[in-house]
Formats: sequence, structure tokens, C-alpha cells
Amino acid sequence: MDYRETARAIKADSTKLGALSGETRNEALGAIRQALITNKEKIFSANREDMAQAEAEQLAAPILGRLKFDEHKLADVTDGIESLVKIPDPISQTVFRRMLDDGLLLEKVTCPIGVIGVIFESRPDALVQISALCIKSGNCAILKGGSEAARTNRALFDVIREAGLAAGLPEGFINLIEDRSGIDALLMCDDAVDLIIPRGSNAFVRYIMDHSRIPVMGHADGICHIYVDQDADAEKAVRIILDAKMQYAAACNAVETLLIHKDAAERVLPLLQSMASDKIVFKGFGDVQKMISCDPATEDDFSAEYLDFILTIKIVNSIEEAIQHINRYGSHHTDCIITENDAAAEQFMTYVDSAGVYRNCSTRFADGFRYGFGAEVGISTGKLHARGPVGVEGLVTYKYKLYGDGHIVGDYAEGRRAFQFRDL
Amino acid sequence: MDYRETARAIKADSTKLGALSGETRNEALGAIRQALITNKEKIFSANREDMAQAEAEQLAAPILGRLKFDEHKLADVTDGIESLVKIPDPISQTVFRRMLDDGLLLEKVTCPIGVIGVIFESRPDALVQISALCIKSGNCAILKGGSEAARTNRALFDVIREAGLAAGLPEGFINLIEDRSGIDALLMCDDAVDLIIPRGSNAFVRYIMDHSRIPVMGHADGICHIYVDQDADAEKAVRIILDAKMQYAAACNAVETLLIHKDAAERVLPLLQSMASDKIVFKGFGDVQKMISCDPATEDDFSAEYLDFILTIKIVNSIEEAIQHINRYGSHHTDCIITENDAAAEQFMTYVDSAGVYRNCSTRFADGFRYGFGAEVGISTGKLHARGPVGVEGLVTYKYKLYGDGHIVGDYAEGRRAFQFRDL
Repeated sequence: MDYRETARAIKADSTKLGALSGETRNEALGAIRQALITNKEKIFSANREDMAQAEAEQLAAPILGRLKFDEHKLADVTDGIESLVKIPDPISQTVFRRMLDDGLLLEKVTCPIGVIGVIFESRPDALVQISALCIKSGNCAILKGGSEAARTNRALFDVIREAGLAAGLPEGFINLIEDRSGIDALLMCDDAVDLIIPRGSNAFVRYIMDHSRIPVMGHADGICHIYVDQDADAEKAVRIILDAKMQYAAACNAVETLLIHKDAAERVLPLLQSMASDKIVFKGFGDVQKMISCDPATEDDFSAEYLDFILTIKIVNSIEEAIQHINRYGSHHTDCIITENDAAAEQFMTYVDSAGVYRNCSTRFADGFRYGFGAEVGISTGKLHARGPVGVEGLVTYKYKLYGDGHIVGDYAEGRRAFQFRDL
Repeated sequence: MDYRETARAIKADSTKLGALSGETRNEALGAIRQALITNKEKIFSANREDMAQAEAEQLAAPILGRLKFDEHKLADVTDGIESLVKIPDPISQTVFRRMLDDGLLLEKVTCPIGVIGVIFESRPDALVQISALCIKSGNCAILKGGSEAARTNRALFDVIREAGLAAGLPEGFINLIEDRSGIDALLMCDDAVDLIIPRGSNAFVRYIMDHSRIPVMGHADGICHIYVDQDADAEKAVRIILDAKMQYAAACNAVETLLIHKDAAERVLPLLQSMASDKIVFKGFGDVQKMISCDPATEDDFSAEYLDFILTIKIVNSIEEAIQHINRYGSHHTDCIITENDAAAEQFMTYVDSAGVYRNCSTRFADGFRYGFGAEVGISTGKLHARGPVGVEGLVTYKYKLYGDGHIVGDYAEGRRAFQFRDL
């Protein structure tokens, strides 16, 4: 079967899925949760094969950690499904009802987006989370996971698909792409796929954006800043910088550039260096090189996402210079000011044009779970539709329903009738 | 000055505009309204020159009608500004406040999108409406109007710019592109322009989408359907079809394809033909050709946006066939069912995947003014961010503000602290 025809069939099924009651979708989630527990040995066994191959190929420890799917990860995802069942139905919600005129009623009602393609890293738990978010929001999912997790993904997919179909979900509710060429086929289906959410390397996200007409939600870069203000508490600053850089350096919300006010540099930089105890490579721009031992930084470093224990440091003369730097070189992801000065904090948080603007806390908090969304489908650095960590509400759109009884525009255009606009 | 530098300067000004109070932005709108009235003779005079040239070039009557800017149009746009001043400030609104933990407060707050490029047809009133919507929502505007209105647009722009600057808006709040090459320059500025709203021909919108990385909000086609159900009232159906086709055939919300249930065709089609009294060219598919005099239709007609007094007609065997046809060939703009049967109406409105799903009223109601939005920046057939007619709320995004006091993620990851998630 041609992949475009397959995509159209999924599209047709998406209207069926969106028309199911919230109760049916919740029951399907419950059945899937139970099936994952019942079939856990089959899943763990597939994962052991993936892990064995990954170890034989000597993949790095953090990749192995994400790849592993064990009792602990199973508990996480089944807990996640349980909390998703409990939240209110995000679709079929009336946003407003308005009488445009006697007998002419306008309703704005939430509904699913339709068909969503998600391309994600080698984390099998992500497959379960994304599937559950899509079912909750009434969207059909086309999934492509990292190849290192191929066997685990297949096992999880089989369990979810079988349980979902038995619970009454339509045939196309979940779909798995198992080879890289399937991604290019997916990108061509702009008449059937409504949204692509790529999670992965910057180059990959950029590739997706440049090779498809399908809207993309995601982030191409995570260049996060911490600005240490002249009124910063030095110990607080160092504690936050170390967490933001070292707690998980490969994350998009890790800090890449430290901007420091000239009047705070002497207090903070030597303390930072001593507390980092050689675990961070500092790249100093300009005068920073005179204050601590560091490698030299160039302007290119301001646009670099290291995803490693490397931190660029630049001294600024004012908060305005810091804001300007962030808006110019940053990726509008998450940026933080360290200050005890309320006015400076408000200035920074108003003028910095990022999805997350923080005061006195680690940039690593930029995450759907930490924001209390229960689950996240990804983080968006775009400004349209959804910004920052995206939970189930990012998978929902709306439609307008207009109920009349023979109403025509000519009557209003020619003054025989007039609109009333009464909100109900 | 290089156009990229200009765009960056506008971008920098957009954060200033977004930081102004709602009061300041409303006062600027009031000053602009007054300046338009004070300078009306200058504007009318420029418009007379545009009109004279358009008449010399023998442009069609509807184009001349849209191009004209007189006392009547002035009253419309100044009334529009007045109602815009009265609506609540769409930015700096708190969507939610949540304590993540003691001393760690998350706020979701609305804010402007930033810099918005709008390319619009030869309607000078559109320039005023779009500028006012952007000021109300705190966005900088880059405007490109149709070349036929060049003198009027320049006069309106000069008045709006001068009054806005005098009222304290930043330098870059409004910008005018006066030649076609400026559009291509605009499309390259994806680091400074956040959104492009093209209004115009399908081919043009498609060109914009294919030649820029900047997100586009708009509609590439307006292929709207009316489905006449077996339980339709024939006279109601004909009245609505005639309005939807003839009240303004060049609009995107005019009907292009009529689908009619086989059991309603005999009752409705001859009546439609007699009421249309030769003003509509009917293109009949299949059996329709046996029932009324018409030109033959092919499958290509199902995807055609005529923008003219032409209507394709197809007989369907069921409501399901109608829904399937609309979801396959339509443009997800606005589609209507004519029926007296409540269940059929709900089925249609649930399963048709369009921004507007109507019962027993003309597709021509799909319009921001008729929905009670006061003004519209365009109509979106995309599903992300904004769908259907887009008012001021479509020009707004949000950011997350997180206030802490030395909070780090390591404490939560290692179990020393736990999230509380208390909504305030």
C-alpha cells in the first residue's frame, strides 16, 4: 500500500478517534496501562536485547540509561497514564457560546488536531507517554523512535495497539515507523499529517523544518543563559549555575552562557571556579580571562549549544546589555537572572523574549513534569500555538460551530437584520 | 542600512512596545484615531490619485470598490479603533499561577508575539485595522499593501506613524514595505520576524510558505461546501446556497461545491436552477447532468476555488459520503449542512474537519466581524495557534515566569525536596 494512502486512512480514522467520548478514551488508557503490566516480561526481554546490542556497540552511559526499560520505568509510565486518565477531557470543551442574532448561535469548541507525527530519541518510555497523550487528546499518532530502542519500541507498540483496538479505538490510532526512510515518506504527507513534533539533535529538527510543509513544533536549539546581576547573592548564584550546567549537561535547558555584571564578577567568578573544582571547562570572553583561568571565547561561542561541561562567560556593563545579548544570541528557550533586586528582576523578565524567564532558580526547571503538567510531548521555542514545555493542551485545537435556521449574510449586509452579539 | 539590521532594530523595539502599559497603547490608538480624522483630506486626496490611476487602467469594479477610501470607510476604521480601545488588554494577563514548591512560583502570562509581517490586498482600510490590532496586542507591524493603493497606504502610514511616535510608541512600531522586492527581503528575516500573515491569492500564500522559515498564518484555499441532507427544507437550502455563492463570490468563504443527498436532489436542484435565473453557471457531476441543464464537472472541479458565479454539484448516497468528500477535497475552511435532522447535523459537525462547521446558514458568516471579534487580521485554515477568523487573541502568545530563591533541580532529582503543585 502506498504510504500516502496509508496516511489518508490514518487521517480518516482520526475523525473517528476524535468523536469517541472522553469515557471511551479513558477506558482505553486504563486497558493499555493494564496490558503493559500484564505483558511486562515480553517488553523487558525485548529491552534486554536492545541493551545487549547497545553495550556491545559501546554506547555512552547516559544513552544506556535512557534506553533501559525496567520495572522502575514501567512504574513511571503506568503512573503517568493513571494521572492522565484523571485530568479533565481536553476536547469537546466549549470555549464560548455567543448569540450572533436571534436563532444564530456560535460555539467555539475544542477538538483534536488530527494526526500527529512524533520523532523521538532512544527512550522507550517516551513512546508510551506520547501515545497516552495522543489518546487522551483524541489524536492519531505516527511514532518514530530512536533505532537503538527498536525491539523495545516494537514490543511496547504491539501491546498498546492490541489493547487500544480491543478497547474500541480505531485501527489507525497508533502507527510505528521502523526505518529512517519512513521519516521522509512522513514528511511528504502534508495533506494527511497535521503536525510533526521532532525531538532530537538541532541539525535533525532543522532538517525536518526544511523538508516538509507540515507544521513543526519543537526547538532547534537550547542556548540558555544565566545573568548574574550586580545585586546578586554570590553563593546563590554559584549554586544555581552549577546545577544548571552540571545536573544534566546534555539537556536543552542546561545553561550555555553566563553573563555577569562587571560589579559582580570579582565576587562570583573565583568562587564559581573553586566550587566547580575542575569539572567545568570555562571559556572566558575579554576581561574574564584576567580574572579566572579559562580558555579564550570568541563570538561564535555565544551561539554554541555545548551539551557538555563547558560554560562561556562574558562580563556585561549593564542589565540592558545582558538582555540585548540574550535576545540576540539566545534561542528563546529559558533564561535566568540572579538578583536580590525586584526591579531588575521585573525588567529582565519583561524584556527577555524567551519561553521561560526565571529569577534565582536553575534553568533546568524548564520541563513539563516540573511545571506540573503530568507529562510533556516536548518543549517549543516557537511562539505560535504552544511555547515552552508542552502538555496535553498543546495537542488540542478548536472549531467554530454555527447553528442557524436559514440565516443569510445578505440580510445583514443590506440592513434588514443586525447582529446582537450576546455571550451566553 | 541593511534590511536584516533594520529587521533587528524593529525586533529590539518590539520588546519595548510589549513592555508599554495597556493604558499607553490605548492612548496611542486614540491619538491615531484623532489624527486620521484631522488629516482626512490629505488621505482622501492620495486616494483620489490611486483611484484615477486604477480607473485609467480599467480595473474591475469590485477592485475599485475595495480601493476607495472615503468618509464612509474612514468612519468604519475609526469606529473599529474605538471598539478596540474598549476591549480588555490581551497582554500581561495571568493564565495561571502555581506554587511548584515553597518559594518556587510559576506564572503563565500572555505577551505579544513580537514582529508581525502582514501582506494584504489593495484595501487601505485593512492597513488601519491591522496596525490597530498590532498596537492593541503590543506587536510591531511590517506592512505591505497592494500596489494599487500605494499613495493611500503611504498617506495612512505617515499619519499613523507620526501620531503613534508622538504618543510614545517606539520607532519601529509600524513599518511600510513599498516594493515587491521588499517582500523577499522580509521572508529572509527569520531571526527577527516572528509571524507572517499573507492575505491574497492562493498562489501567493503558497509562495510565502515555500520561501520562508518564518511561521505563516493564513489560508491557501477557500473551498467551502454546502451539503443538502435528505431531511433538508428545500426553500431554506436554496436561499442559503444562493447567498453563499452570490452575496460575494470572490470571497474565500463563498461556496464552491454543493453536495446533495440523492433523496433531496429532485426537490432541490430544479428549484435552485429556477431561483438562480441564469446568474450561476452550474457544473454537474454524474447524474446531476440528467436533472438540470449544466456543464459537465470532472474530479478536478472538486479542488477548484472559482471565486466566481460557478458552482460544482455532486449527488451523494449518504451523509458519510458527503463528510468523506469534504474532508478529502475541502480546504478545512467552512462547510455547512442543510438539514432539519438534529442527529445528522451533529454527525456532520463532529466529523467534518474544518475551522467552521455550520448548520442551516450561509458559509459567508465565516468572518471576524460577523463572529463579534470587532476586527480580524485574517482567516486561518491551519489548525495550530489560531483557526478560522483571527482577532486580536491570535496575535498573542505567552511566557512562563518562574520565581525562586536559590532553587536547584538536583534537590528534586535526588529526593531532598518534592514538588507540591498548588494552583493559586
